[in-house]
Amino acid sequence: MTALDTRPGALTRVPGFLAAGVPCGLKDSGALDLALVKAERPCAAAAVFTTNAFKAAPVLFDQALLARSNSTLQAVVINAGIANACTGEQGLRDAEAMARLAAEALALPGDRVFVMSTGVIGHSLPMDSVAAGIAAAASALSPEGGAAAAQAMMTTDQVPKEAFVQTMLDGVPVSIGGMAKGSGMIHPNLATMLVTLVTDANIAPRALDEALRRAVAASFNRLTVDGDTSTNDTVLLLAAGTAGHRPIGHVEAPNFGPFQEALTELCTGLARMIARDGEGATKLVTVTVRHARTEAEAELAAKTVATSPLVKTAIFGHDPNWGRILAAIGRSGASVDPARTSLWLGPTQVVAGGEPVAFDAAALSRWLADSDEVEIVADLALGSAAATVWTCDFSYRYVEINAEYHT
Amino acid sequence: MTALDTRPGALTRVPGFLAAGVPCGLKDSGALDLALVKAERPCAAAAVFTTNAFKAAPVLFDQALLARSNSTLQAVVINAGIANACTGEQGLRDAEAMARLAAEALALPGDRVFVMSTGVIGHSLPMDSVAAGIAAAASALSPEGGAAAAQAMMTTDQVPKEAFVQTMLDGVPVSIGGMAKGSGMIHPNLATMLVTLVTDANIAPRALDEALRRAVAASFNRLTVDGDTSTNDTVLLLAAGTAGHRPIGHVEAPNFGPFQEALTELCTGLARMIARDGEGATKLVTVTVRHARTEAEAELAAKTVATSPLVKTAIFGHDPNWGRILAAIGRSGASVDPARTSLWLGPTQVVAGGEPVAFDAAALSRWLADSDEVEIVADLALGSAAATVWTCDFSYRYVEINAEYHT
Repeated sequence: MTALDTRPGALTRVPGFLAAGVPCGLKDSGALDLALVKAERPCAAAAVFTTNAFKAAPVLFDQALLARSNSTLQAVVINAGIANACTGEQGLRDAEAMARLAAEALALPGDRVFVMSTGVIGHSLPMDSVAAGIAAAASALSPEGGAAAAQAMMTTDQVPKEAFVQTMLDGVPVSIGGMAKGSGMIHPNLATMLVTLVTDANIAPRALDEALRRAVAASFNRLTVDGDTSTNDTVLLLAAGTAGHRPIGHVEAPNFGPFQEALTELCTGLARMIARDGEGATKLVTVTVRHARTEAEAELAAKTVATSPLVKTAIFGHDPNWGRILAAIGRSGASVDPARTSLWLGPTQVVAGGEPVAFDAAALSRWLADSDEVEIVADLALGSAAATVWTCDFSYRYVEINAEYHT
Repeated sequence: MTALDTRPGALTRVPGFLAAGVPCGLKDSGALDLALVKAERPCAAAAVFTTNAFKAAPVLFDQALLARSNSTLQAVVINAGIANACTGEQGLRDAEAMARLAAEALALPGDRVFVMSTGVIGHSLPMDSVAAGIAAAASALSPEGGAAAAQAMMTTDQVPKEAFVQTMLDGVPVSIGGMAKGSGMIHPNLATMLVTLVTDANIAPRALDEALRRAVAASFNRLTVDGDTSTNDTVLLLAAGTAGHRPIGHVEAPNFGPFQEALTELCTGLARMIARDGEGATKLVTVTVRHARTEAEAELAAKTVATSPLVKTAIFGHDPNWGRILAAIGRSGASVDPARTSLWLGPTQVVAGGEPVAFDAAALSRWLADSDEVEIVADLALGSAAATVWTCDFSYRYVEINAEYHT
């Protein structure tokens, strides 16, 4: 497997995919706000969606679409600025119209276009603008359009998130490219943002679905910015099947493992990019809980630390306030024995077997100030399971963004 | 029952209780930081504690004390500035020493003194200072000392929280007074702060315990500032038994109901005061979910809204961003039918049966700016259960306090 390539244009680096990003007036700034991705031929498709009970109209549309289309898709249309969530019946009609307009512009048969929306909740889409944007994007589709598409799906994101990886199956290079958006309202359980992944791998829909679920469980579902789960979260994976390796017909096929490994690597890379670009973030924070009784408990404890406003503000303040980390683990519901618990903050052990370890607080505070990435490791000394969760610190800027990102 | 009296000195307005608050150097500012409360005679005692697995030393001490003393106590010693949490074996010795020093200073037999600590986690108490403080507080005990005691238990609190109520049992006035501290690391499931309640009611320990549990469930356990549960949270209730009504021997006794009602009223008042004084709060926010399938689901949905950083920053920003409220309800796990859900933000209905209601956003934003208290009401139209949760908004000041409140 090649190293993760995070240069712009990841999606269209995969053979057989075209993309475009255009402005159509949904963002007041005039920035790119409508993305279109088209495969040259029909693709096997898999997707995971938000678990929120208030699913946005495009999520409801897509869930029905996957069933109707027998998991065969060929294009994705994405708008940013308005989420088309909590928009009632009108919202469903608008999502359907987006798919229909894109299919017409791309001369595709019905039921081949997936729809994603992100932005403000509770507002209806201005469909004239969206229609104009879809027409413009269809004309602009190109093998160099990946970077523009990634920019067009951004909302409060500071930077686009793109990643590309190649792996060899049967001596043939297989590519996977992905683009993601997400900065706030990010929390595990479910997809927690918009992600479009494309590959030229030759893989059956059921195996593709399983590969996606495994990759998401170990990446996007271990990512949290603020504990809020969006109404729109969606991860889509399209597989064109054009790479010349032996087809992956099922999860026992010899090529499934290497494909899964590359897909998880790509998703983990994108998840870390989202955490680093969390709203107002100044640092990427990784929380690892090891020697937990079960993996579920390790994940629960790590997520509780990663969502604690007290832990996250302390890191923002360069305060080695490890008591807040222990307190979060203690309320998580994971099995813990205080007398066995050890804790490291960055390079420094601060608790050993439940007893505080003397350390140079000023030096550790300086380390926190200087570090772009902060690692927290808790050892529960109860079992052999471990989990890592990615998040960011909690700054004034988070409050500013969310007090002023207006409906 | 009289109206809630929130003037200073609530605790010592109850006949038979003395209190004091003194400075002993635990707070750098030199402010009052050690409180002592003494009853003139032994009291029936009940307490509820944090559910955090990392229980602070005083919590572990108190839990054993209640069993040893057969729920009979006569004094409470409280320090602020250092929580004596995550302090290992030394912490347990220090908590025991606090109780012993207070018992000696007050000439009480062993096992009569309850201990509470609040402040920074992971630091040991400077016991010389604490000992001097206990001696000074014992000398300063007075029937006018309630206000000083309430001040001495504050950490990041902006104001002390005190409340007093009287009810008539058998034509005899019965008083209940309480003082509370808590501003951050406040979350339901359990006590979520330090609270000392005293009464002259004549009530058996088991009935007292049940009355306290019911009152806490409907008040402090429906309060959240930041979703973090402290290692030290404790609510203590002492009953001196000097009021001349027929004793309340069990929960079926005729006086139990009126006593319970007064106690819940007092606890609810204190819980609202804590929410209003949440770290960095500019507003008290009440979240009511009604017509839920069960009370547990109503509480779950209301708590999820009340802990959402996105909802809380929107209210701080005077942004009528109701989509964030629906999204929080939708991820809460409570049963919801989007098409039946209605929502009110302050005076304005914003969603009716799942459809957005047109409203004057500028006017509602002005209302949010002008309002000291913001009420959110969601109607799930699924059943007959309801719950109200209290919280506050989420401001720059929260981040500032918690980035700078240093270990």
